[in-house]
Parts: sequence; C-alpha cells; structure tokens
Amino acid sequence: MDIEQFRKAGYQAIDRICDYYYSLENRPVISKVEPGYLKDHLAQSIPEKGEDFQIIADDYQRFIVPGLTHWQHPSFFAYFPTACTFEGILADLYATSACNPGFNWSSSPACTELEASVMDWAAQLLGLSPVFLNGSGTGGGSLQSTASDSALIAVVAARSLYQRDHHNTKMEDLVIYTTTQTHSLGLKAGLILGLSVRALEVTAEDEFALRGVTLQKALDDDEKQGKKPFILIATVGTTSSGAIDNIPEIQQVVKKQPSLWVHIDAAWAGAALSCPENRERCYLKEINEFANSFCTNFHKWGLVNFDASTLWVRNRRHLTDALDVTPPFLRTTHGDAGTVIDYRNWHLALGRRFRSLKMWFVFRSFGAEGFRSYIRRTIQLNKKFAEYVSLSDKLILVTSPSLALTVFRLSPKSISPAQPALDEQSLNNLNRLFYGRISARDDIMLTQTVLNGVYCIRLAVGAARTNESHIKQACDLLHKEAELAIEAWEQSIIEESQ
Amino acid sequence: MDIEQFRKAGYQAIDRICDYYYSLENRPVISKVEPGYLKDHLAQSIPEKGEDFQIIADDYQRFIVPGLTHWQHPSFFAYFPTACTFEGILADLYATSACNPGFNWSSSPACTELEASVMDWAAQLLGLSPVFLNGSGTGGGSLQSTASDSALIAVVAARSLYQRDHHNTKMEDLVIYTTTQTHSLGLKAGLILGLSVRALEVTAEDEFALRGVTLQKALDDDEKQGKKPFILIATVGTTSSGAIDNIPEIQQVVKKQPSLWVHIDAAWAGAALSCPENRERCYLKEINEFANSFCTNFHKWGLVNFDASTLWVRNRRHLTDALDVTPPFLRTTHGDAGTVIDYRNWHLALGRRFRSLKMWFVFRSFGAEGFRSYIRRTIQLNKKFAEYVSLSDKLILVTSPSLALTVFRLSPKSISPAQPALDEQSLNNLNRLFYGRISARDDIMLTQTVLNGVYCIRLAVGAARTNESHIKQACDLLHKEAELAIEAWEQSIIEESQ
Repeated sequence: MDIEQFRKAGYQAIDRICDYYYSLENRPVISKVEPGYLKDHLAQSIPEKGEDFQIIADDYQRFIVPGLTHWQHPSFFAYFPTACTFEGILADLYATSACNPGFNWSSSPACTELEASVMDWAAQLLGLSPVFLNGSGTGGGSLQSTASDSALIAVVAARSLYQRDHHNTKMEDLVIYTTTQTHSLGLKAGLILGLSVRALEVTAEDEFALRGVTLQKALDDDEKQGKKPFILIATVGTTSSGAIDNIPEIQQVVKKQPSLWVHIDAAWAGAALSCPENRERCYLKEINEFANSFCTNFHKWGLVNFDASTLWVRNRRHLTDALDVTPPFLRTTHGDAGTVIDYRNWHLALGRRFRSLKMWFVFRSFGAEGFRSYIRRTIQLNKKFAEYVSLSDKLILVTSPSLALTVFRLSPKSISPAQPALDEQSLNNLNRLFYGRISARDDIMLTQTVLNGVYCIRLAVGAARTNESHIKQACDLLHKEAELAIEAWEQSIIEESQ
Repeated sequence: MDIEQFRKAGYQAIDRICDYYYSLENRPVISKVEPGYLKDHLAQSIPEKGEDFQIIADDYQRFIVPGLTHWQHPSFFAYFPTACTFEGILADLYATSACNPGFNWSSSPACTELEASVMDWAAQLLGLSPVFLNGSGTGGGSLQSTASDSALIAVVAARSLYQRDHHNTKMEDLVIYTTTQTHSLGLKAGLILGLSVRALEVTAEDEFALRGVTLQKALDDDEKQGKKPFILIATVGTTSSGAIDNIPEIQQVVKKQPSLWVHIDAAWAGAALSCPENRERCYLKEINEFANSFCTNFHKWGLVNFDASTLWVRNRRHLTDALDVTPPFLRTTHGDAGTVIDYRNWHLALGRRFRSLKMWFVFRSFGAEGFRSYIRRTIQLNKKFAEYVSLSDKLILVTSPSLALTVFRLSPKSISPAQPALDEQSLNNLNRLFYGRISARDDIMLTQTVLNGVYCIRLAVGAARTNESHIKQACDLLHKEAELAIEAWEQSIIEESQ
C-alpha cells in the first residue's frame, strides 16, 4: 500500500468509524455469535498472493464487527467501562504511525519526556501527594498496560526490597496479602511469581472492606508461623461491589509493620479522586501519607483509550533496584549519566508503546473541568439507578451503591402470598434465573458476581454515551425481566409440586 | 469532540501521516533534542478548561515530532527494525475505535476467534509444526506484547510444570539457563521471578552460538550442586550478533534431560523462517521436533506494527495450569464448557488489546509471497553491506553476517606505516571513537555492542523504505567517518607523544 492508497483507505476508515458511532445505539450490545462462527469466513491459511485492501476493509465490517461486543454502547453496564474517546483514538493513530518503541530516553526522547510530564498532570488531577510526582526526583509515575501489570510490578519491587532488607528469607515463606474481594490480579501475581497469596476475610457488615483488626490478626498469625507477609494489595473500589478497604485502619497497623509494602489498587475508582468530594471517602489523605504504590486505570473510567494503567511509587529506586538490566547494546550517554528516566527499568518488558500521547490529548481536550464533569455525571446516573432499585418492590441493593457501581438482586417481598419466604439458596437460584434472562438479551449487558455466597448482579455506569434515558430503559427492562423471572419461578414450583 | 469534529480531525490526522511519510527521508533519523527539552513547551499541569483540538494536534507536530527518533527512516539501522505498515496502522485504528478488552471469548468473540486463526496462519507461514497450531487442540499460539513478556510466560509455565513434577523443590535451587548472548529478557525474567539465571559461555569461534557440550557441562555441574535448571532460553538470532544457538546439539542433550523446558527466542530472526531457504540454518526441523515454546516478534521484522509478539507452546495446558484464575465475575457459559479459548489464561494480565486485526490485515494485504519478498529483499540488502565491509581496507566483519544483521568494526590494515599494529584495547578505543563520530550524526542510526570484550558496531536492515541507495549512502558515510576517526586517532597519538 503506497501513501496515496493509505490516504484513501484512511479517510474511509475515519468515515466508517463515524458510521459506527452514529449506529452504535441501534446495534446489539452483546454479540450473539456462536463459538467458531468466524472460521467459516476465514481462509485456512495466509493467502499466497496479496489481496486488495478494499476487500479486507469490507471483510472487517462483514465478519468482525458482528462478532464484537460493543463496550462503547450506552447500554453496556458490564464489568467496568473501557474508555474510548475520539481524542484517544486520534492520539493512538498518531503514535502508531510513528511506531517507535521508546524503551529508553534516546530511542525517542519525546516518548519519555511526555510520559514523565502527563503522569505528573494525572497525579495532580487525582490529588496525589507531590512525593509521587516525577518532578520530585524520588517518587514517580509510569504508564503500564493493565492494573495486573501494575500490581505485579509492585509485588516484584516489594519482594526485591524485602529480600534485600531481610537476607536469607526463603521464597516459600513470603506471602502476598489480598482480601477475598481483591481483583484476580492478586492471585495471578502469586501464580506468576510462585508465591503464596493469603486472601483476608471481609464481611457484608463492613461492606466488604478490609478492617485493620483482620490485617493485624493475620500478621500475628503469620509471624507465629514464620511466614513473611511483604505486601498488601488494598483496593479502593473492588470489582465485585466497589468496596473501599479501610485505609486509615490499615495505616495504623502498618505503622508497626514498616516492612509491609502497601499497594493501592484503585484500577476503576481512582478516576473519582479527580473530584474533591470523593477524596475523603476514598481515603486519599491516608494514601498520600503512607502507600508505597498506587495504581488506577485511566482506560477504565478515565476517558483514555485502553491501555493506560498509571502506576505511581513513593520511591522510584525500589523499581529500578528490582528491574534494571542494562546490557551493552542498551547503554546510552544520557542513561549512564542518570540525567534522564529510562522507563524500561520501570516495567516488565523492554519495548514500550507511546501511550502518553493519548493521556495528553484527552487531558488537554477535556480539561480538568470536563474530566470531573464526566465523572460526576456517571456517579449521578448511578445514583438514579440505585434510587430505582431502592423504590422497587422486587429488587434490593446488596451493598450501598459505590460511586458509579450498583450491586443488586431480585428479592421480591414475597413470591406469592401463598408461598413462604425464600431461603438463601432459593434466592440465589431465583437470581441465577433472573440473570440468565438478562444475559440472554442483546440490548443490555450486565455482569453477575457472588459476594460471600450471595449471588447478585452488578450495574456499572461509565460508557461515555450513557445518559438518563439508558438508565431509565435499563430500569424498565429489569422490572420486566424481574416479573418474568418470578413468573417462571412460580411456574416451576407449581410444576415441581404436581 | 463530537462525531463530525472527529471526522475532520481524523482526515487531518491521515493527511498529516501522509505528509510525515513523504518527508521522512529528509528528516534527521535521530532526534537531537537535549534532555528536558519538552518541559518548556508543556503546561505545569492539566489545563482547567478544555482546549481546542486543532491547537493540540498542531502542538503534536511542533513539539512532539521533533523529539521522535524515526524508526521508520530508511537510514535507521539501529537495534532491530520496528515494523510499521499502513495496513497495520489502519487495523490498529479500527481496533482502537471499538476499544474492547477481549480477555475472554464472550467479552468480544471476534477478538478471540481472529487471534486463534491468524496465529495458525502465522505458524504455517513460518513452517512451524502442526502441533503448535490452535487447531491442534493441544498446542496453540497467542499474541503477547513483547518477547520479554513471551519469555516470562514461558519461564512461569516451565517453573509451574517443574514444581508440579518435582514436589518440594526449593525456589532458591531453580535456575534459568541463558547464554551470555541472550537478550536482557532472560536476566529480567530472573529478576522478576526472583530466580537464579546462569548465562552459559559462548565463544567467537562458535560464532557466539551455544554448543551442546557447554549445556551438558552446566547440567552436570548443577546436578552435583543440587541446583535445578528447569528452562533454557535458546536464541535464534541474538541481538548483539544474530547468533543462532546450536539447536540440534541442544536437542541431543535435552533428550537425556526431559524436565528441561526449551524456549526458543527468535524475536527478530523468526520472520526469516517464512522463506524455506532460511529454515535449515535456523534449525526449524529440530525446533519443531522438541521445543516447548517458540516466540517471534512480528513487530520487528514481520511487517506488523508494534506490538505483536507471537508465542506458541507445544502444550496449552502448561500455560493454563500455570496462569488460570477464574473469579465469579469472569465466569461465562462458553468458558466453563471449555468450548472456547479464554486468552486471559494464556498471558500475564487480564485485559488484552485486539492485536490480531493487524496481523490479519498485513497477512492478507501482503500475502505470503509479499511477506517473503520483503524478507528476501532485506537479507539481500544486508549482503550488499557485508560485501562492502569485506572489501573495505578499514572495516572488518566481526562475525559472519546473519540474515539482515552485520556486525563490524574499524580495523585498519595499519594506522600509519610508522606505527605498530594496535593492541586489542587500543582497537576498542579506536572503535569507540569511530562509533562516537557516527552517533553524533543525525542522518544515520546504528548501535554499538560488545562481543566477548570486542567493541563493535551493528547494522540491522529492515525498515520498509530502505533500499540500495541507503545502503550505499551508509557505506560512503562509514568510509568517511572511518577515515576521520583514524586521522583523529593519529593526531591524538602524535599529541600524546609530544
């Protein structure tokens, strides 16, 4: 493809993306293709002769788009949102067109310098302490792919530091602390590193937040058994229910346990810190006072296209001490002199994509004001939804709504006047039936979860095009499906009893 | 930014990318900005009010582009090439616009299905054994970010398997084998996992390839010391000199050591396997017979934009046994039934970008024929360069040219008739001076390396726009700089002796 062919195909791509967004609301949210659907549309192997690009571009529309789940659809309420802004798309387009893996400063100076600056912008936007800024010279921030990568890096840095400070610690004795509500990133870090993971218990009474007393008890237990807990992954906004661990209580415990690294995983909820009214609730003050590392994914609720996981550390040396390898072919004058950041020593791999450009485009185009207004709007929409649940005679909130996430379930006042109240197992089964009905639809997408044995459903607001009408539509639809689920349930009871 | 504003900004981005490529050859290859150059052009923090997008787009051209090192420049011969094709740019544009993290099948079926298919296409293109195909049901391939990630995953899978087969093995006894020429990914995997890395020696006589006898001796040594080597990272095409480890000899040793996982890192050279004439030299037959995992980066020499690291394993269960975590909120009907691949269990994180689209676009647009013809052309260009070095009275080849990489150094027949031949240290210093002169230029980029104490210079061909005229230009320029380096050296000797 030559430059002019690219211009033509590029214009067409832009036009088709516009068409996609104009038509998005009328598409099904969830692709309902069957496993293996694509095989029939693909050749068995790479064609011998090159094909005309127009055919390829058309095949994308014909065969790929119908197999996509549309995360940008205004009725996508599953998992957490994945940000996609036009500014982010354009930045990625420019970055891809230059295609330079800026793994150290000299391999493309702008990549490193822009990353160092926008990470400081992001830290300030969230209200992080100046100690986390690259400008501080001691702490610093860098872009990673995902919160899993960020957490893994924090665990590696913490383990490396612990082992330097505690010679002869056996790997088998090291323990990563999470809670039962921590994202799978905790368990995965353990699997990758071959280290034990202890998931501390949390309760519904505490709204699934880790308490200091639970942490202290675990530390005491493990000390007796010669175990060496070296990191706690605490969460601000868990995936299942948006729980916020009790950071102030954790801080008090950690004061007596300075070798315990505390990593804050605020993958989803971190963006809410941009609004001062959310900071106390998310314990920003305490995080700033003592957390060793902090992560949030701007690609979730932060308007920057996937991937843009931001990781800050209080002491950058803890990263580079753990991750620096410099073979001769990577030595550079500026790197050796220490006058520049070489971000390759701040992450797992060597090559890095130029992700800071999309942060820069989004931050400048929205401004702090626009960013906060988007966050506030989604929280407001979730509030509307939670109010609807509160007023419903069929649905109940399982936990208090958390920022832009509501966890609810079907819990009819009574199934029918003639029936006794449902026991917990029956309620779970009824809710499975309810969720089964919802997930069979293609005009809305939500996800299930289980909270300490309670089967429930999550609704996460955040797709940029979601407005009040989609919340209303979701409420109506859930109401209808709730009625139908109860009817089906009653019918099954009648059939069973016959 | 609304849809029509995006259309306008999108057309402009396409036009500016066209301008970039039209002007590329006339730009300096290397950015010559000074550390900190960007700070003066950026605000101290995110603006409060959003800015007009045109200003942002213009600032990209004004402040960012001058700070880029142009990896796509036809005179970029440093590191290894990083692929950037228009087809790849367009695919990434489409993928970014849908922005769906296809971490499991149902979160976006097309992402998983296309990845499974194009990985099979890629395996067939390279001549990999059918056991590595996703279609085999036992082996399989997946896309990773970088060869470092791929190697790390292989090491984790190997360690997990070894520990299952050898209960009570202490982590402290586990050893990762590399050679002294293995990419930093080996050492980094060791740092991340906290495991020992033993770099086996290789010699200039063997052209820096690992021999079976060296491996056998290391295994015998380690057995005596109770150490447990569980993986060997062997390389086909090392970074420093393009060395190809002696895979047939390794195969013979490993026959007696079946618990040693062999990972083949062909990050750069793997693309050459697309041409049958390179297969014997790269030991494809033996790789197919016994390697546990194989990685090549299509984003290096394989025409697919960064990032597209392909990792194949002989047994997919070894990945999922090591990496599968499935919390309730990630359970899906099809995933539970095992009818679909859930790629999140084949890599380190959870979220995945839709990278298979660029593989598909590139493979179809170029066809196998076009892909091979590009590989052959770059090898041919490198041959031209190596011929020039062979004929030069000032430069010598340090190792035989490997595929599209030549390692050479300045080694004048004599510095001046009056001077004695240079000793090794003086030759290294002369070459440092020579490389210092080259790297001070902005019209060509090469990288240095050190091979068992010998300071030398690498020239890697592969940027898509490099043609014979750029090789000729590089030769002329190196000839001139060689003369000037020798002159400067003689001058310094005269000054010293005065």
